[in-house]
Amino acid sequence: MLVYGRNVAKEFLEKNKKVLKIIIQENFSEENLISLIEKSKFKVEIRSKREMDHLCNGLHQGIILDVPDYQYHTLSECLSDPNSEFVVLLDHLEDPHNVGAIIRTCEAAGVSYVILPKDRQVPINATVMKTSAGALENVSVVSVSNLVQSIDQLKKAGFWIVGTSLEGDMDYRDVDYTGKIALVIGNEGNGISELVSKNCDFLAKIPMIGKTNSLNASVAAGIMIYEVIRNRK
Amino acid sequence: MLVYGRNVAKEFLEKNKKVLKIIIQENFSEENLISLIEKSKFKVEIRSKREMDHLCNGLHQGIILDVPDYQYHTLSECLSDPNSEFVVLLDHLEDPHNVGAIIRTCEAAGVSYVILPKDRQVPINATVMKTSAGALENVSVVSVSNLVQSIDQLKKAGFWIVGTSLEGDMDYRDVDYTGKIALVIGNEGNGISELVSKNCDFLAKIPMIGKTNSLNASVAAGIMIYEVIRNRK
Repeated sequence: MLVYGRNVAKEFLEKNKKVLKIIIQENFSEENLISLIEKSKFKVEIRSKREMDHLCNGLHQGIILDVPDYQYHTLSECLSDPNSEFVVLLDHLEDPHNVGAIIRTCEAAGVSYVILPKDRQVPINATVMKTSAGALENVSVVSVSNLVQSIDQLKKAGFWIVGTSLEGDMDYRDVDYTGKIALVIGNEGNGISELVSKNCDFLAKIPMIGKTNSLNASVAAGIMIYEVIRNRK
Repeated sequence: MLVYGRNVAKEFLEKNKKVLKIIIQENFSEENLISLIEKSKFKVEIRSKREMDHLCNGLHQGIILDVPDYQYHTLSECLSDPNSEFVVLLDHLEDPHNVGAIIRTCEAAGVSYVILPKDRQVPINATVMKTSAGALENVSVVSVSNLVQSIDQLKKAGFWIVGTSLEGDMDYRDVDYTGKIALVIGNEGNGISELVSKNCDFLAKIPMIGKTNSLNASVAAGIMIYEVIRNRK
């Protein structure tokens, strides 16, 4: 996986994270980073700006790192972990900034597992890594083939499934979040899919009094996650 | 102000919003949009891809609209509005996605005024407009020269100033949010500035149990705004 930009490069090199290859632009002159690169002893390639622009869409600022892909966890790991009493499921989110911000909120709130589907969902990519601001070190992301089947397994393991939905029948402040809770966050445009929605034990609604009637997905997730935490205390 | 992309263009043209000029790429062929452009009778310019790339950094998808700049409101308007019992202040936010998401949360929660400083703060630009998902139609944004002076004026008008801070001395759930409330959201990296912090009546802290100890600014704002709403009910 390619990650890029000076801040990201600095984070990887300073924290001695594994890097497969460092690509720098031919006239690269950022002294701090050059010193970190020299110390690191990772393989370095020098390329033209044009070649580097071609490698990534973003602003690489003269430095691209090829780093190992994120190593996903399994649902069995999550289910057998005695500390996973509150998990968050993402129902096909599209915006990597939202996924990163949600992982960051999970870490702050002490949620150890985030479960996401393999297909039609932003994977853990460079933007998610950047937006999660280091939280991926302390949150385990589980990749599953089928969200509905995973919900079924969670139910069998004693989890209550709580969806967040504009069509929810309960005010989010009235739901009982004690016990094992799996919170489902829906897609940015379409919300929770019908099949997932049918498999939820509760559908919680955040009241809105405005006209546009919608919240950014990571903001809605933040409000819900902190509500669960408050209620469980 | 230039806004770009097919979705944004569609929104402006379908809702008959004022457009100063439409710029389309020489081979532009999106039928729906062409029909909307013809109906609109706005001035149209045809340019090469190269020229259009030069006009905006983003992906213009062959269409750029020159639209009137956002018309800011004044603090006097806000102070004389009997419905402005709960306002949100942004203390030098840098990320337009955060500003847009916060305006969207304000609209959903019924907050009518967002106050932001003129300098060292993202203005209401194309990205903010896009991220706020139409919420700018129902939220008034006030631009002020000096945040501390504005806080002083808000205090004189009977507002309690509540800052959100990692160093806050009160759990955000223990603050009394009845009465007139001005909630201050701090900068993404540095939080609330020292001078603003000193002028807050309360500094509220969202408890975090993770290791990275931070939330995305728009997520923290969402949790705080919904806490104020809950407490005032």
